[in-house]
Amino acid sequence: MADAKMPYSLNSKAVAEATKSWLHKRGVTIEEIADLVMLLQKHYYPNLTMEECIHNVEMVLSKREVQNAVLTGIQLDVLAEEGKLFPQLQDMIENDEGLYGVDEILAFSIVNVYGSIGFTNYGYVDKLKPGVLERLNNKETGQIHTFLDDIVGAVAAAASSRIAHRKQAEREKNLGLPHAPEDTEEAAKKLTGSNAEKPE
Amino acid sequence: MADAKMPYSLNSKAVAEATKSWLHKRGVTIEEIADLVMLLQKHYYPNLTMEECIHNVEMVLSKREVQNAVLTGIQLDVLAEEGKLFPQLQDMIENDEGLYGVDEILAFSIVNVYGSIGFTNYGYVDKLKPGVLERLNNKETGQIHTFLDDIVGAVAAAASSRIAHRKQAEREKNLGLPHAPEDTEEAAKKLTGSNAEKPE
Amino acid sequence: MADAKMPYSLNSKAVAEATKSWLHKRGVTIEEIADLVMLLQKHYYPNLTMEECIHNVEMVLSKREVQNAVLTGIQLDVLAEEGKLFPQLQDMIENDEGLYGVDEILAFSIVNVYGSIGFTNYGYVDKLKPGVLERLNNKETGQIHTFLDDIVGAVAAAASSRIAHRKQAEREKNLGLPHAPEDTEEAAKKLTGSNAEKPE
Amino acid sequence: MADAKMPYSLNSKAVAEATKSWLHKRGVTIEEIADLVMLLQKHYYPNLTMEECIHNVEMVLSKREVQNAVLTGIQLDVLAEEGKLFPQLQDMIENDEGLYGVDEILAFSIVNVYGSIGFTNYGYVDKLKPGVLERLNNKETGQIHTFLDDIVGAVAAAASSRIAHRKQAEREKNLGLPHAPEDTEEAAKKLTGSNAEKPE
Ligand SMILES: [Mg+2]
Ligand SMILES: [Mg+2]
Ligand SMILES: [Mg+2]
Ligand SMILES: [Mg+2]
Repeated sequence: MADAKMPYSLNSKAVAEATKSWLHKRGVTIEEIADLVMLLQKHYYPNLTMEECIHNVEMVLSKREVQNAVLTGIQLDVLAEEGKLFPQLQDMIENDEGLYGVDEILAFSIVNVYGSIGFTNYGYVDKLKPGVLERLNNKETGQIHTFLDDIVGAVAAAASSRIAHRKQAEREKNLGLPHAPEDTEEAAKKLTGSNAEKPE
Repeated sequence: MADAKMPYSLNSKAVAEATKSWLHKRGVTIEEIADLVMLLQKHYYPNLTMEECIHNVEMVLSKREVQNAVLTGIQLDVLAEEGKLFPQLQDMIENDEGLYGVDEILAFSIVNVYGSIGFTNYGYVDKLKPGVLERLNNKETGQIHTFLDDIVGAVAAAASSRIAHRKQAEREKNLGLPHAPEDTEEAAKKLTGSNAEKPE
Repeated sequence: MADAKMPYSLNSKAVAEATKSWLHKRGVTIEEIADLVMLLQKHYYPNLTMEECIHNVEMVLSKREVQNAVLTGIQLDVLAEEGKLFPQLQDMIENDEGLYGVDEILAFSIVNVYGSIGFTNYGYVDKLKPGVLERLNNKETGQIHTFLDDIVGAVAAAASSRIAHRKQAEREKNLGLPHAPEDTEEAAKKLTGSNAEKPE
Repeated sequence: MADAKMPYSLNSKAVAEATKSWLHKRGVTIEEIADLVMLLQKHYYPNLTMEECIHNVEMVLSKREVQNAVLTGIQLDVLAEEGKLFPQLQDMIENDEGLYGVDEILAFSIVNVYGSIGFTNYGYVDKLKPGVLERLNNKETGQIHTFLDDIVGAVAAAASSRIAHRKQAEREKNLGLPHAPEDTEEAAKKLTGSNAEKPE
């Protein structure tokens, strides 16, 4: 029947689009995150372009774990703004309580996807709050970004890790060294004209 | 003035009490968590008593990081039951989506407080779902415990780690060995009649 | 001059090959790890083949973070076998001390690369010690595998997570759903005839 | 018989003393770590004294997980200095390879013991390398501190987290608020004259 409930099945495209859409609604652009990446990486790669930074942020945002953390964090920020949380949790999130560390925990699950080399970059931008992070930390706006500021810093740190991995691959290629491709590159290599990783 | 808003200040007692109260409201007793601890540890410590298991669960629940994770996880379960989450997040939490791993992430922040030796115990009970975990995983009840089941397993794993540390201290004491007290024990040692750690 | 020291530059192929070689020297085959993957996943994917399990183990082993953890862990096992560690560390690693958790920490860095959904699988096999893990835990052999047993379980858990992600992509494709490719798939999609991800 | 091998039993005092001794041998004093703590925390607690910072560093170093990470990390540094590691691992640790993240992983296991609120402080000092960290990062000395610099930053970050927890407890006490003691404080409270936590 028309109104029979469909059995649940994850819709990954809907999750990916909700992630981008909520970042946008909360006032964060991909370019602003890419600016943080540039800030973190330009010292190491003087030729790094904004296009590369943007592409790497988008690749980070394509990862399911990252989407889960972004949506969950923004959800908690939005509910805090609406005053709909348990009173004690409401108090802590609304006031960005220093001893409440769940925002850092979600941020870490983002950084981790590209490995531990991103830990330092995350901590650094989270402490210094450059660019978009300064705006997200402005407590005068009435908006609550207790989770989002950590999330944005984590996405930038993860994109930086992704760049570091890619640049090493390029360096070895340019040196004519034998290169051992990582998972992503391997997947790409196997591909011959089809538009998805071959059934394994 | 009477209606001036009090400046925010964390009320740790309110957070601790809300944690216990919400575990209770969601149908989980300290004794059930202690049963999991007993299951995990009785093989290693045949003389372990239920009183010890209960005490160790209570000590785990006294930790602020644990309270933060418990409250945040139960909050998301409750909101999912009320259908109040972003549609895509609602879908994933309501259906305990296998590729949504934020519940495991919160669980890990609990285990971690007592160190990495608890990782294995957490994974084990989370997979086998003994005792209370079987009930929390029953999808027929209309209740949603996507976060709570992982949280309960994590508290039991953390209490098991706490016991392992304490038993080592007892063993060394009984052997008459010189013993190097850890933080908790050290704090206790410094105390002479007062009811709090001395100002440091 | 001929004997001038070459400036250091990471040789990723040498690291990848050393990883495979050391697993082999320590008596662990890719097939044995794939057996653990099959054990963990066949219940969820009845049509899963050994070829898929092997391929996914190989992809996990192609990741740099995984190689770093594998090499570091095996190095510590080997040095413990040779009795070359600081006496107190030697004692703990030689005896697989329960309160020494660095082996679990390295294992977790492996699981994490494919996200938190692998935590449970790691804990489960680490506790039950099926197949190759039983042999690695045999303390009668004179060999020391304090790190390797956790590492092997973690590689199997990570490969299981990788499969779960891939199977979801296949499912959506088969249902004709719009699909949002993750990083790896995206990289593959961009490729048109070249054998590496395009310079970004 | 006199030369029968004693069955293994963890000697926690020996591990604790080896930790302090190796930090000292590698040229790091408790005071230097306390200086990092002061740098990180003086802005938040203007009355913080060096004695408090030193005490908190010592409490962090009394934790078993911290000792395990410190000893394992320094062991790898020392073996790298002696050129005794597998060639590929030797290369990466000797050159503090940016894509080798096991040092960050061990550091994180230290920070985690006092909760996620320390992540940011760790990343911050690891990036800026103030004080002792600058010296440890000097690559001209012939010494290798690939692990130690991260470890020292992590101990300072953990001590900062410990201080934040303690200061909250003091604040609530001074305000005459009802206070919910955490594990450590609870242990201390139970004590009445004995010099160890009562058998539980
Ligand atoms: Mg925050
Ligand atoms: Mg769950
Ligand atoms: Mg082990
Ligand atoms: Mg380092």
